[in-house]
Amino acid sequence: MKISGRNKLQATVKEVIKGTVMAKVVMDYKGDELVAAISVDSVDDLDLKPGDTVTALIKATEMMVIK
Amino acid sequence: MKISGRNKLQATVKEVIKGTVMAKVVMDYKGDELVAAISVDSVDDLDLKPGDTVTALIKATEMMVIK
Amino acid sequence: MKISGRNKLQATVKEVIKGTVMAKVVMDYKGDELVAAISVDSVDDLDLKPGDTVTALIKATEMMVIK
Amino acid sequence: MKISGRNKLQATVKEVIKGTVMAKVVMDYKGDELVAAISVDSVDDLDLKPGDTVTALIKATEMMVIK
Amino acid sequence: MKISGRNKLQATVKEVIKGTVMAKVVMDYKGDELVAAISVDSVDDLDLKPGDTVTALIKATEMMVIK
Amino acid sequence: MKISGRNKLQATVKEVIKGTVMAKVVMDYKGDELVAAISVDSVDDLDLKPGDTVTALIKATEMMVIK
Repeated sequence: MKISGRNKLQATVKEVIKGTVMAKVVMDYKGDELVAAISVDSVDDLDLKPGDTVTALIKATEMMVIK
Repeated sequence: MKISGRNKLQATVKEVIKGTVMAKVVMDYKGDELVAAISVDSVDDLDLKPGDTVTALIKATEMMVIK
Repeated sequence: MKISGRNKLQATVKEVIKGTVMAKVVMDYKGDELVAAISVDSVDDLDLKPGDTVTALIKATEMMVIK
Repeated sequence: MKISGRNKLQATVKEVIKGTVMAKVVMDYKGDELVAAISVDSVDDLDLKPGDTVTALIKATEMMVIK
Repeated sequence: MKISGRNKLQATVKEVIKGTVMAKVVMDYKGDELVAAISVDSVDDLDLKPGDTVTALIKATEMMVIK
Repeated sequence: MKISGRNKLQATVKEVIKGTVMAKVVMDYKGDELVAAISVDSVDDLDLKPGDTVTALIKATEMMVIK
């Protein structure tokens, strides 16, 4: 199975904070912090918790560049 | 100046491919490849070229998680 | 493997049009037409072609509602 | 009036869950479940409630493909 | 008919540039320039051309803030 | 420092509402209302409050057009 999204970064979950609808997932990627805002349903469905090895997925059209 | 976007990844431009409207910017980020699809106008405005040190910016709501 | 994106729609590829950077993938989803704009690299990587059974993936935060 | 967004799926609202800022709207589309995360203000503005016939709108650049 | 997207900006089309898949639509919005990257199909479907009065639509989750 | 995102609108913060994960930032742009849904962490990091002069940033691929 392949996903069209071009950016896939293997990371480790550090923290999960759940609101009513949205949740924050903080990850570590080689010393950098990644933050994803996904639905609480997704957190529950994937059973996301600190220590999990995950892949952060970002579509190329969603990435900006600063120089 | 601060930007609300939570994910700011320092990367190095490896390749820039320009179409008519959209351009592909390939970057190296700590050994992984990042690909951003931004407008050709932005590439010209930022004068993006291989070797440039840049920051890839991703809003937290645009990041998914795979486990 | 599970993906946090909430909307996964099984569809059939009808047409693939490639530009320089972006490609258009037209799909049939239960009689309705879906159109995804993804990178040409993704089309090549997944070897997308008419007749393929695929899943269209949409993050919940990317879906609007009209009433 | 026409909208540039390419993907428009007629669906029926099944459930609306409101948080402080964001709300989850669960819809049925021909037996599949669609989930949109929109603002609570939008839910109130459109008076979204179970049973409503709505259209889910997705821009082509926001749709990924899995194969 | 109401759309959940919170930001609806009345603008005037100044320029339309079409690539193979994506098109650039430049608009004037109260003296500032807006640029939308939409599909060529949408440009054709809406028959977008300079001088048109249009509404730029942006979902609240797609807007960042710089301070 | 330049950002690839094409749409930058100078606005004034009118209201900030914080949920657990997401926050709503309402802004005034020349008499129009802009609404951004960003993370609570961003609101805190930028110390956003009514009266602040800010810039709303929108990537061109995130803007639709209605005609």
